[in-house]
Amino acid sequence: MSLIVQKFGGSSVRDARRIQNVAGIIAETYLEGNDVIVVLSAQGDTTDDLIAKAEEINRHPSKREMDMLLATGEQISVALCAMALEAMGLPCVSLAAWQVGIQSTGVHSDARIKKIDSERVRSELDQHRIVIVTGFQGVDRSGDVTTLGRGGSDTSAVALAAAFHADLCQIYTDVDGVYTTDPRIVPEARKLEEITYDEMLELASQGAQVLHNRSVELAKKFRVKLEVLSSLERKPGTKVKEVTKVEKTNIAGVAKDTSIARVALIGLQHNPGVAFQVFDLLGKNNINVDIILQSIGREDTKDISFTIHRKDREEAESLLNEHKDVLKFDHIESDDQIGKVSIVGVGLMSNCGVAAKMFEALYEAGINIQMINTSEIRVSVLLDEEDVNRAVKAIHSKFFDE
Amino acid sequence: MSLIVQKFGGSSVRDARRIQNVAGIIAETYLEGNDVIVVLSAQGDTTDDLIAKAEEINRHPSKREMDMLLATGEQISVALCAMALEAMGLPCVSLAAWQVGIQSTGVHSDARIKKIDSERVRSELDQHRIVIVTGFQGVDRSGDVTTLGRGGSDTSAVALAAAFHADLCQIYTDVDGVYTTDPRIVPEARKLEEITYDEMLELASQGAQVLHNRSVELAKKFRVKLEVLSSLERKPGTKVKEVTKVEKTNIAGVAKDTSIARVALIGLQHNPGVAFQVFDLLGKNNINVDIILQSIGREDTKDISFTIHRKDREEAESLLNEHKDVLKFDHIESDDQIGKVSIVGVGLMSNCGVAAKMFEALYEAGINIQMINTSEIRVSVLLDEEDVNRAVKAIHSKFFDE
Repeated sequence: MSLIVQKFGGSSVRDARRIQNVAGIIAETYLEGNDVIVVLSAQGDTTDDLIAKAEEINRHPSKREMDMLLATGEQISVALCAMALEAMGLPCVSLAAWQVGIQSTGVHSDARIKKIDSERVRSELDQHRIVIVTGFQGVDRSGDVTTLGRGGSDTSAVALAAAFHADLCQIYTDVDGVYTTDPRIVPEARKLEEITYDEMLELASQGAQVLHNRSVELAKKFRVKLEVLSSLERKPGTKVKEVTKVEKTNIAGVAKDTSIARVALIGLQHNPGVAFQVFDLLGKNNINVDIILQSIGREDTKDISFTIHRKDREEAESLLNEHKDVLKFDHIESDDQIGKVSIVGVGLMSNCGVAAKMFEALYEAGINIQMINTSEIRVSVLLDEEDVNRAVKAIHSKFFDE
Repeated sequence: MSLIVQKFGGSSVRDARRIQNVAGIIAETYLEGNDVIVVLSAQGDTTDDLIAKAEEINRHPSKREMDMLLATGEQISVALCAMALEAMGLPCVSLAAWQVGIQSTGVHSDARIKKIDSERVRSELDQHRIVIVTGFQGVDRSGDVTTLGRGGSDTSAVALAAAFHADLCQIYTDVDGVYTTDPRIVPEARKLEEITYDEMLELASQGAQVLHNRSVELAKKFRVKLEVLSSLERKPGTKVKEVTKVEKTNIAGVAKDTSIARVALIGLQHNPGVAFQVFDLLGKNNINVDIILQSIGREDTKDISFTIHRKDREEAESLLNEHKDVLKFDHIESDDQIGKVSIVGVGLMSNCGVAAKMFEALYEAGINIQMINTSEIRVSVLLDEEDVNRAVKAIHSKFFDE
């Protein structure tokens, strides 16, 4: 007998029919003799509806009250799912995060799971009940409801799998696995049978929407075996593991991200500590910086370019301008018509031909590269936004077409 | 400085505009220098919508999961109300019943409040925050969410007022107080300035919809000063107290209830224990019996008549028929085209003219009385349903027209 954690996203539980479908998958797993912990997101548009209700009343509600409001979404899902399982005659119990004891930090709307009490869930599993838990949420030290931020339900599922030493954590979604690139852009994209945590992590950070990187990080840390699969089609998905069984001869995939903007500080003084001051300022204002590039500018000055989320561009610019006297730069140049394309694969950087092959594909397609950034298992290039899809196609074809 | 508990029902918070109106009332009370605990019901149709969602999935969901589902309704209300107060710049915090520590019995869908922890609410009040609590719900010993059944939010408000020794518990609703009878039937009905707990209790039990009797019982027990008033019109409501200031010379009001059915067991054996067997059987099946009347039947048999909620009639009849062999009655007669009209007033039964005056009014209106039942402060008559409104008018006119 195994313990399996199954997580279903918002579109998988969006209406009564979908919930019954989900209950069918859970029932099958349970009736095969497994212990099952289910983690659910809020139904389809529930979160958006709740946000709209809030905005009608207060354009800038506190994050604490927003969390209190949004947490009802998953509670509705778990109760309805339990009812669907009850209708099948299966023993089950729905639990909100505070009932499970999913303890989190107190950072409302972006909390991190600190600890999971095992008592209640363990006692329910001992009574052979299917346990259905609200994803995306926790409770902080003062007993307030928190939400975990983007991809929170995936993180809840992986954290529960880690806490209860689950044999497998299945992430059910509306795609049937992890692909070598976005099949909407490249119809020839292939589903991967297996992928390593690190590759999945880079793909997730580089814009592949399948799994949020926080959940993959957590899975890697606690060696939780993950599987990404479809709740609508019964076929094997993609397994995410420490080491994949096949000797890798190729990259794992091509990812794109068009939600970014590039900001450049031009004509900075060549003093020590300037970079620290710039990124300390942005960090303290919760602006996440992705790629950073520093180059020598004209005369004795230098330029620093970096990418951030597009939504943060205006705020970043005004912050930097407010501190122009201290930072001593000449002017800011920024661009939000850009995109990032990345290739990801274990051993990629130790195989010197790979990056060159990517650049060759871009060259052949006549696409200009604005910035380059690399990690151990990833090469990213910054391009004009209008070139992004063409770049993905060209690179995918270069690596995957025989 | 006083501590005031203010409870607002579902129609008072049904949309953004109404919530802002409610926030205005709360703000006024707070800015006058009072501590305020607010208790809210679910918005307008939320509960019905949630029940519809459940029914789509399971026609007979467990009460535990139904409570888990329905409890989201009040949580949405309190978060939105907190946001409205935040928009006014007022310090506040919303709390679900489990955060307050409203401990209840484990009878899902009909739980009773056992105890309220004071720590969290007290600490929020000490920080001069308005505390907004989900009505209608509690948490049982195993940490499961319960709901309190009909009128549950009133009960939550009174229980909080009792636990924190509030100076006043205001029940805001869509009527502006307690009337001598239903103004929709008798336009001349008058609003009562004051009423005693006992009178309110009888009026509530006899069909006046303003306050649920459980909340009035609790208020009486802990001597919580209640006030019933409108959330839409700013004018004094009706105060419910131990003793009212005016020497009573009249009844407090006339109530009607047309949700009842009468069932009669005809030709019962004249054995001891028969009544016990009948009502034990009904009680064990959660069928509440109101009026009971036993009469000598033909020959050596007797008849027992009783009233129950109309929805329970079919179930009661089949239960009794199933046990016909044991109970040994001849047949059942039942009628759900009946109604009950009651007059309520302290000292009513010690003033022998009062009941007679009621019967006189009915006689003059040519209305037949089927059954009569009395308590210390109430006289009820059972009538044909079609006579009920006419009876209310006739009786009200007899007692209140000069």
